[in-house]
Amino acid sequence: MKPIGTVRTAVPDDAVAGSRRQIISRIVIDEPYAEALLGIDAYSHLFVLFWLDRQTSSGAHVYHPRGNSELPLTGVLASRGRNHPNPIGLAVVELIEYRNPELIVRCLDAFDGTPVLDIKPYDHYDRVLEPRVPPWFLKRAMTAGE
Amino acid sequence: MKPIGTVRTAVPDDAVAGSRRQIISRIVIDEPYAEALLGIDAYSHLFVLFWLDRQTSSGAHVYHPRGNSELPLTGVLASRGRNHPNPIGLAVVELIEYRNPELIVRCLDAFDGTPVLDIKPYDHYDRVLEPRVPPWFLKRAMTAGE
Repeated sequence: MKPIGTVRTAVPDDAVAGSRRQIISRIVIDEPYAEALLGIDAYSHLFVLFWLDRQTSSGAHVYHPRGNSELPLTGVLASRGRNHPNPIGLAVVELIEYRNPELIVRCLDAFDGTPVLDIKPYDHYDRVLEPRVPPWFLKRAMTAGE
Repeated sequence: MKPIGTVRTAVPDDAVAGSRRQIISRIVIDEPYAEALLGIDAYSHLFVLFWLDRQTSSGAHVYHPRGNSELPLTGVLASRGRNHPNPIGLAVVELIEYRNPELIVRCLDAFDGTPVLDIKPYDHYDRVLEPRVPPWFLKRAMTAGE
């Protein structure tokens, strides 16, 4: 595993999660891989895989989502939260602009300086029109105006 | 990076890509992480991250998709094909059945024996209703009856 680039954002670490629906970030791809972006602007959305280099893991395998004891005890693999065995972040982002070797993207919930591991274009096979999720998740997503 | 489980399928390696829309696989999660699946059956779809342990990389950063010289020269990061700098596979799969410590899933285009790195539930934030993709991609997806 080797980094292929770095996330750049002016948003402070502790404000990233809360602003993830609007946050604009730059992904600066390292020179050897810049040519590997050829044609990426034909896509509107991308997956970004990144290394959660600042995440501290408690090692717990189950937890109450958002620290809310009213939410059901949930396994870390059944959640998008922290403590996954491998600290790999995954975000679906909107590609706003491609300015080689940089990608300007929206909705990347990664801290400034985060190492990027991979970029993959999002296509129709990635689209699930009506995913089933837990009621408590859906309630919040709808309230947030998703 | 450590494996957390293994893909099991009866489909031979050379038939996996061609049958990816229907393929049913088992993901067997290793014992220490089995409890981390708690509540996963509240979701209909999952992301699976896996290690492409049998992929040989040419090291090329650009290529013609599907080896078809009529398709535009494309960077490997602008493609879901091979030769990504880090050999991490990503699939959106349908969760058919959860039988701890196993997940029975559809659409996992990974070979039998592939090490699994992470499982993440798919939610509404991962859904892009109308992704823009290259014309040549869309044409094929539609022909395939997507």
